[in-house]
Amino acid sequence: MSPRNTPSPVLLRCDWMVRDQSWRMVLGKRNKQDQLSGCCIEGGLSSSGKTGTMTAALLEQYRERIRTELDRVVDFWLKFSHDNEHGGYFNCLGKDGKVYDELKYVWLQGRQVWMYSRLYRTTERFHKPEILEAAKSGAAFLQKFARVQGSSGLGKCAFCLTRDGRAVKVQRTIFSECFYVMAMDELSRITQDKEMQADAESLMDRLIFWVQTDSSELGRPQLPGDPPVNSMAVPMMLLCLVDQLTEGRTDVAEKYKDLSEWCVERILQHIQRDGKAILENVTLNGKELPGCQGRVQNPGHALEAGWFLLQYAQKKGDVQLQKTAVDKFMEIPFHTGWDKQHGGLFYFLDVDGHCPTQLEWNMKLWWPHCEALIAYLMAYSHSKEPVLLDRFKQIYDYTFRHFSDEEHGEWFGYLSRQGEVVLDFKGGPFKGFFHVPRCLYMCEKLLDGLLERQDS
Amino acid sequence: MSPRNTPSPVLLRCDWMVRDQSWRMVLGKRNKQDQLSGCCIEGGLSSSGKTGTMTAALLEQYRERIRTELDRVVDFWLKFSHDNEHGGYFNCLGKDGKVYDELKYVWLQGRQVWMYSRLYRTTERFHKPEILEAAKSGAAFLQKFARVQGSSGLGKCAFCLTRDGRAVKVQRTIFSECFYVMAMDELSRITQDKEMQADAESLMDRLIFWVQTDSSELGRPQLPGDPPVNSMAVPMMLLCLVDQLTEGRTDVAEKYKDLSEWCVERILQHIQRDGKAILENVTLNGKELPGCQGRVQNPGHALEAGWFLLQYAQKKGDVQLQKTAVDKFMEIPFHTGWDKQHGGLFYFLDVDGHCPTQLEWNMKLWWPHCEALIAYLMAYSHSKEPVLLDRFKQIYDYTFRHFSDEEHGEWFGYLSRQGEVVLDFKGGPFKGFFHVPRCLYMCEKLLDGLLERQDS
Repeated sequence: MSPRNTPSPVLLRCDWMVRDQSWRMVLGKRNKQDQLSGCCIEGGLSSSGKTGTMTAALLEQYRERIRTELDRVVDFWLKFSHDNEHGGYFNCLGKDGKVYDELKYVWLQGRQVWMYSRLYRTTERFHKPEILEAAKSGAAFLQKFARVQGSSGLGKCAFCLTRDGRAVKVQRTIFSECFYVMAMDELSRITQDKEMQADAESLMDRLIFWVQTDSSELGRPQLPGDPPVNSMAVPMMLLCLVDQLTEGRTDVAEKYKDLSEWCVERILQHIQRDGKAILENVTLNGKELPGCQGRVQNPGHALEAGWFLLQYAQKKGDVQLQKTAVDKFMEIPFHTGWDKQHGGLFYFLDVDGHCPTQLEWNMKLWWPHCEALIAYLMAYSHSKEPVLLDRFKQIYDYTFRHFSDEEHGEWFGYLSRQGEVVLDFKGGPFKGFFHVPRCLYMCEKLLDGLLERQDS
Repeated sequence: MSPRNTPSPVLLRCDWMVRDQSWRMVLGKRNKQDQLSGCCIEGGLSSSGKTGTMTAALLEQYRERIRTELDRVVDFWLKFSHDNEHGGYFNCLGKDGKVYDELKYVWLQGRQVWMYSRLYRTTERFHKPEILEAAKSGAAFLQKFARVQGSSGLGKCAFCLTRDGRAVKVQRTIFSECFYVMAMDELSRITQDKEMQADAESLMDRLIFWVQTDSSELGRPQLPGDPPVNSMAVPMMLLCLVDQLTEGRTDVAEKYKDLSEWCVERILQHIQRDGKAILENVTLNGKELPGCQGRVQNPGHALEAGWFLLQYAQKKGDVQLQKTAVDKFMEIPFHTGWDKQHGGLFYFLDVDGHCPTQLEWNMKLWWPHCEALIAYLMAYSHSKEPVLLDRFKQIYDYTFRHFSDEEHGEWFGYLSRQGEVVLDFKGGPFKGFFHVPRCLYMCEKLLDGLLERQDS
């Protein structure tokens, strides 16, 4: 799947003048001797016929680059991350793929199993035995080692394991367990392993119990100065799981109907300041919290919530919620989060303009950009509003210019505010085989849909 | 104590050519109209008489600047951090001193009590009622609220409290408790409060029990993949506490003699790679740990350990340990940690040159520079090796140029690799009234000693 084998034309540059609706694209193609030949196309958007042609050409170029990039990313992880001795995946991979630490992070293992399985199940060119085997290897490792032995929490998973599966750390949160559920559900859809599916469902029920009824099994002490908080991650994660578990199953969809409504309600509580801000943490009844915790904004997370909501609202046919997803959870974080000086999305911001206390607040991380790409392409795909494609283009240009590593494949994850790579590994304790391939996979599917409709 | 009231000459620039032992100083003085008048002095170090005069002049300039800076820093915290309604101190202060979050961090409260008390007890110009009152207010707040109610750990303190003293978070480490002990011991030396002193000593005994015998009260689960680690912070912290508790008390010194030897042994285990590296985490028997955890270096922390060791070795008259403190815990982290391109000390490094996984690895933080200043001035004061004063000068120039805020007083804490301020607050969850004033206070004392010896 190396791009060298597919010398298809690549979009080298595309300038789109929003004001006068004119555009200019430079396309290039490499021959087998790696020489570049290019051409330039210009046009305007005054006639609807031209618009259609131009947009289709642009979308086709995006799709081509995104397909190539996805192939490279899948190759990278297949080649470098598999532990053939102990099973599962190495997570910590240097810029050239070399393993620099052997720890195995349960949530990242789960994400990798899910991603392989989803690619295998839904995309023809990934429907290959080695992809399925890759998924199964990670799932077997998780089934064998992820659950914490002797833990009071029924089904509590470790956060991190040694190479041979001994627990190193247990977090007092729900996220390792969430990705365990996602992984097992997706893989069991392929293998028809009823036991695996039942395992995923029973852990899901436990997760709901922890979140909605009693969190004491998670091991966090109840402290008088620390009342429960509605942190955006929790309802987002559960909504994502509901989407996973209910696909094609009306009975399960019925079972989780109330839960998904509860998640949406909890997510919407994060719209604050008279509808002008998305705040990361609020009280359980949707009020603003005091201090830094209450003022923090995480634009990438809000954008991710945006496409989760839009996807849900589209399924439900809820027009008002579709509008809210775009106007509140995409446009607000995009406008507040985009760095006007250097480009890219900030990691954290304070709604009142104080300096965030997170040392990495002004860094540009890969995953908010991945989520923003999905969000805007989904929004454009839904409404065809040209401004939404403009946003996608702006984020796309920054993302592909700064994060993708032409030399070794995969993406860098951590840039300075100015856009220089400051941590050059491809995999680490918080970066696995997930946001990049999910983004590329989803964007490819969305572009397939857009181009199909354009053709018909 | 504003510097505007003390128009003493200020060292504007000092170039010291190590190769030909020549020097050039530019001194300046501001009059009441804030106009600057300056002069330039040049010389060489060929005759010992000149050397003495030149060094004395330089040290005098350092002392003047450091005194002024200490006064400003004390003023800043006295003015902005006190909570007159609930007692204790606000920790989160913006660049101009405004409170941006009301949470109170127990370890930072303890450090502030200690610092006020130490200044009051040992430095004439701070021996003023308002300094003592400031210390007492923090101590009363801690006595009332710091201990976690109903905690299984006897004496376990919260990490963080609400403004009115309700526990927000409890860490499964020992550091909040350590600074509680430091605070109470130092203040009780002034007030002769026997009960407070006994409280400090009994918590100290508990700390030793947790570290040396049984840590289960801290609440960290024992996991098969996570064997106990010798993390540099723990023996350093206990050695610092022994130094605190034993000052002027031969009986207590006798009681903790074995403990201090244990601490020194544990610190020395961090010398690795045939004596060429100081590693932050090693096994309990002094071997290297696998992965990132084992390879991480924290130059500022090693330098701090360096002056802890040197101070201990000087008291003991242990010449070999004095040499180890300087050669291993100062020279190695200085050489590996100094950024040859942009100046300043990196926060984290990997001994094998991999990229650290800490997002802030290449940032320049205030506290490693504070600790480096103390380390090299103490080392120079001890041996009078000119190269050690050169190091001090190099760190001093970077530190005062980049961290000190001329406009609002106090120091910035967090710079980019290039030396720009990226988090502009003066106080935050990890920056209180401690490293800056302790550095200035200790450097002033060391310079007093050096200049006194020079005079006599």
